[in-house]
Amino acid sequence: MSLSRITFLPYQRSIEVSEGDSLIRTALHAGVHINASCGGEGVCAKCRVQVEQGDVAEGLSERLSPEDIEAGYRLACQAKIKGDATIRVPVESAMDRSMFDQQVHPRQTARIQQMDFDSLKERGLFIPPVEKAYLELPPPDAQNNMPDVTRLIEFLKLQSDEHKLELTIPVIRKLPSILRAHDFKVTVTLVRPVRDDGKTLITNIQPGDTTDQAYAIALDVGTTTIYAQLIDLKSGASLAEDGDFNGQISYGEDVISRMIFAEKGDGLETLQRTVVGTINKVLGKIISRAGVEHENIATITMAGNTTMTQLLLAIDPSYLRRAPYVPASTMYPPFRAATIGIDLDEHVIALLYPAVSSYVGGDIVAGIMGTGLYREEELTLFLDIGTNAEIVIGNKDWLACTACSAGPAFEGGGIEFGMRAAKGAIEDFSLDSVTFEPMLLTIGDVRPKGICGSGLIIMVAVMFEMGVINNRGKFNRDLDTERIREHNGVWEFVLAFEDQTQIGRDITISEIDIDNLIRAKGAVYSGCMTLLEEVGFSMDMIERIILAGGFGSYIDLEKAMTIGLLPEIDPARVIFIGNGSLMGARMSSLTNRIRKDVVEVTKKMTNFELSETPSYMDHYVAAMFIPHTEIEKFPKVKERVEAWKALASRN
Amino acid sequence: MSLSRITFLPYQRSIEVSEGDSLIRTALHAGVHINASCGGEGVCAKCRVQVEQGDVAEGLSERLSPEDIEAGYRLACQAKIKGDATIRVPVESAMDRSMFDQQVHPRQTARIQQMDFDSLKERGLFIPPVEKAYLELPPPDAQNNMPDVTRLIEFLKLQSDEHKLELTIPVIRKLPSILRAHDFKVTVTLVRPVRDDGKTLITNIQPGDTTDQAYAIALDVGTTTIYAQLIDLKSGASLAEDGDFNGQISYGEDVISRMIFAEKGDGLETLQRTVVGTINKVLGKIISRAGVEHENIATITMAGNTTMTQLLLAIDPSYLRRAPYVPASTMYPPFRAATIGIDLDEHVIALLYPAVSSYVGGDIVAGIMGTGLYREEELTLFLDIGTNAEIVIGNKDWLACTACSAGPAFEGGGIEFGMRAAKGAIEDFSLDSVTFEPMLLTIGDVRPKGICGSGLIIMVAVMFEMGVINNRGKFNRDLDTERIREHNGVWEFVLAFEDQTQIGRDITISEIDIDNLIRAKGAVYSGCMTLLEEVGFSMDMIERIILAGGFGSYIDLEKAMTIGLLPEIDPARVIFIGNGSLMGARMSSLTNRIRKDVVEVTKKMTNFELSETPSYMDHYVAAMFIPHTEIEKFPKVKERVEAWKALASRN
Ligand code: FES
Ligand code: FES
Repeated sequence: MSLSRITFLPYQRSIEVSEGDSLIRTALHAGVHINASCGGEGVCAKCRVQVEQGDVAEGLSERLSPEDIEAGYRLACQAKIKGDATIRVPVESAMDRSMFDQQVHPRQTARIQQMDFDSLKERGLFIPPVEKAYLELPPPDAQNNMPDVTRLIEFLKLQSDEHKLELTIPVIRKLPSILRAHDFKVTVTLVRPVRDDGKTLITNIQPGDTTDQAYAIALDVGTTTIYAQLIDLKSGASLAEDGDFNGQISYGEDVISRMIFAEKGDGLETLQRTVVGTINKVLGKIISRAGVEHENIATITMAGNTTMTQLLLAIDPSYLRRAPYVPASTMYPPFRAATIGIDLDEHVIALLYPAVSSYVGGDIVAGIMGTGLYREEELTLFLDIGTNAEIVIGNKDWLACTACSAGPAFEGGGIEFGMRAAKGAIEDFSLDSVTFEPMLLTIGDVRPKGICGSGLIIMVAVMFEMGVINNRGKFNRDLDTERIREHNGVWEFVLAFEDQTQIGRDITISEIDIDNLIRAKGAVYSGCMTLLEEVGFSMDMIERIILAGGFGSYIDLEKAMTIGLLPEIDPARVIFIGNGSLMGARMSSLTNRIRKDVVEVTKKMTNFELSETPSYMDHYVAAMFIPHTEIEKFPKVKERVEAWKALASRN
Repeated sequence: MSLSRITFLPYQRSIEVSEGDSLIRTALHAGVHINASCGGEGVCAKCRVQVEQGDVAEGLSERLSPEDIEAGYRLACQAKIKGDATIRVPVESAMDRSMFDQQVHPRQTARIQQMDFDSLKERGLFIPPVEKAYLELPPPDAQNNMPDVTRLIEFLKLQSDEHKLELTIPVIRKLPSILRAHDFKVTVTLVRPVRDDGKTLITNIQPGDTTDQAYAIALDVGTTTIYAQLIDLKSGASLAEDGDFNGQISYGEDVISRMIFAEKGDGLETLQRTVVGTINKVLGKIISRAGVEHENIATITMAGNTTMTQLLLAIDPSYLRRAPYVPASTMYPPFRAATIGIDLDEHVIALLYPAVSSYVGGDIVAGIMGTGLYREEELTLFLDIGTNAEIVIGNKDWLACTACSAGPAFEGGGIEFGMRAAKGAIEDFSLDSVTFEPMLLTIGDVRPKGICGSGLIIMVAVMFEMGVINNRGKFNRDLDTERIREHNGVWEFVLAFEDQTQIGRDITISEIDIDNLIRAKGAVYSGCMTLLEEVGFSMDMIERIILAGGFGSYIDLEKAMTIGLLPEIDPARVIFIGNGSLMGARMSSLTNRIRKDVVEVTKKMTNFELSETPSYMDHYVAAMFIPHTEIEKFPKVKERVEAWKALASRN
């Protein structure tokens, strides 16, 4: 694809982008503010820009006069890149040149790390947990009429030096007819023990040679969504992946409401059946899409938080939500998937990721195993942020973990106009430093409906840096803009006036919303602080951050540091792994090394209950500022704030 | 109980017996022949005897004239011992005194050996496979909120030095509520591994202290009958025992017809369901009779022949009955009993006795384990005789085994008037050496209906020793008795004329019947011979015989040696163990030592297929005589035959 060079005037900022990209997002990416109140739907006409050189595609609108069009004006939100161009952004306010460098900071998202099967192999970490072996057994005769099972086992001993083999009764049941139907030429599936002194289970026997068809399933059993991958055990490739909302949502959005439901009548059984129902739906899709036969699937590796795990196994979760928060177990033995209703063949072995505690579950452990952070030198902060935030800090020598309730702010909850990251959610934002006109970009480029979590972080960060709000999240009442106003006794900033929204009402962000965000980020940050302090480390020693879960993918790292959600670190040292639970499940499907290590890792993961750690409250109170009481912990934020302050005082 | 001394004249034989015993059986026991044709029902009046001193109870009959009664005549079959007495048996024939010592040889049955739990303990062979432990766990608090499973395991580690513990998911499911309902005071059931490096399974958890209630079930899955014992694991006692006919009988009497049925349609599933149905019926009876709670039953140990074992597990038995006679497996892993439909709690672990081959099954191995012969010096012949006879020979150093088809003669099959050992079956017999009048005693003391296996052996032995038949089973046509006759071209001996029978027909034993018995005993004896020869031993080296199965209990050992079924050996060296399968299952329920040993024992048991052993035919042909071509192998028989011969020539 050929790249086009776009230069924005008067800022003299250039950027290379692909043809077809949206002009307004190109501007944002280049760090250029363009007023935009309608989310990019083309109705506010605030995003007028003038094409000075080159050309763009589209961008015409009846909101532009023929003269304007003639003069090269286009709506930036409608225009698409079609080649090199120079674009002039109208600047309503007088400004000096220094402002040109103090514009929007382009969003810096985390580097995405994907699972790398080959490097796993290279590093000698590949110990296949499942192997298929094709055997041509000598048929029995009068001189050699040993039992079928003995024949099979002795042959494997002799030919492949296999020991400690065990067949389950269902396999023994199939053995006589399959051996004889195909002249004693068969393929066996060997499921390796995790412990070296364990037994190798022969879980399946098939006629002929099926060694090229060996598959496993990795499954993330999330509170909200169920994701599954169908994995080719030979190549490590994911042949199909799909997900669906966990059907349990009908019985409660979060783990707490599910636990409450489970305690009533046959609630537990209902929840168990429901989640298995969703799992079966997702598995059905990926299996048929990949065109794989059920018979050739050997294992399913599952990871979920402690509540989801107990619900999946129909284990009463009552004591998870009551002090002192005791899980039934953190380790489960392998079992046959069919026994809990999963629609896989009888021979399929299910493995469940072990957990650490009631609130640091198998999904987090899976993430730790998937990223391999437990094998590395670097001091790493692993964060999975949702309604609950799970925090793991450590490296190959030690691991500490905890969980805290962040509240729903990061998912748009508890925010008046908050919403999930769906169509119409304001997901990107900048502010004109003089006029305080916003640049709003929404998911789907439609008029705004609300604000999603990552948008909220950007807004609060931008407003803080520009001095629109102070470090306690209060609006600067002195600013000359009608957007800041008091409404029913609460101060707020109007992001979009009613005529520019989908909801027929002004969309605002209030001091209450900001306070909720501060509480959420404060909980996470002080959780990290507490954990570090407990093990004798400090925040500035963090060398790397790994973000897991949906939340981390779009987050603007600089802004997250500005509000004090993340410690200040080179954004290049922040990695996003997406669904860590699924990643870990996939890794375990592929190598027993991970399954061996996980036992040690969970033992090594020291769990801290924040409610039982007295310093947590102090850290929390200190984190109730933007970015923090001690802004010295955030030198770059301090620098940017001071630069804006200097600029503002000059205007 | 006081004993009475009974003296029989003219033989001058005395015997001490209990009051209430039958007079005629007392005579038999004393080795005194009394004519008796109606089986002891009191209708033939042949059993008249005269009470000369003392008195007997009952024995009056309208078949006796008032004068006879006055003179002290009584029917021996109706009379009961009530004190010391002298009884004269009328002797119709002239005889010299030497005959008095050549009368009936009283029946010598095998010494019954019962399982001896205490000696097992004394000999250090008691390694409990199941233990219950009562634990008072410290309840969780904020400082110690480890998972329930971890709490339990750590406590067991610390308090009882338990290691390698594993809980199944169903137990984990129960754990949280049971722990909390009873203040963390619980009883766990620990099922020990057979291999020292295996895991101890925690299969159950119960509130409070239930350590005094630990039970197991031993089960014999026989082709004809299912027997079960409920065993107290603390005392080793059998609290209840019961049996029932295997419901599979409706689908075929023997293993071959069952196998054929299993091959048709859903025959296999039908047979599986049916045998489990019988098992559940029997278990229901013993559990309710013993008043034991299902929850406190920890294991069920089962033994059956190879066919019954495969049918129980729904494993196609087709290849068991077809050359080269290959079982699916001879070892099965432990499994949960409920998975095959057995009506026991989900936690109950089922263990199946391993087999050696298609025709030497787990029932035989159980017998070997139950008797402990594999631990002893003595060279022992273990025999389980039915339609098939299983033979094991050996001691602690080596074991050889085989199976042969004996045919149904020992169970009364293939014998014109043959019947099972049920009411009306002639079970004991002697013959007047001059008049050839028989003494017939039937099961239940009723008029005869037929002949059971043990009766048949006695008849043939008695007739052979007296020269009524020769060593090829042919009648001496020269004898002066109407009882020997030709009927439809076949020579036969009339045991009871029609008016003395229940069936309105003469009951006879023919040369064809005798030939069938000779074939049956020949098969068994030559099987033993072949086995011994293959391992370089000979019959006279046998130091001990163990008889298992129903057949052995009533067998007259001397007679069995006379016909050449058993080698000649001191009858005191013959032991009857009854249901060896059940005995072995019970032993395994009580000590893991047996479970450990059985793996080695089955490996050590060298199986011989007689059809593949050329010498078998020669031995078989040589054994087709009474007692054998080489009568020198049976010196005592030879002696008796010669004594009778001398006597006969004198008369
Ligand atoms: S018209 Fe372009 S953002 Fe509103
Ligand atoms: S009357 Fe006594 S045996 Fe017949």
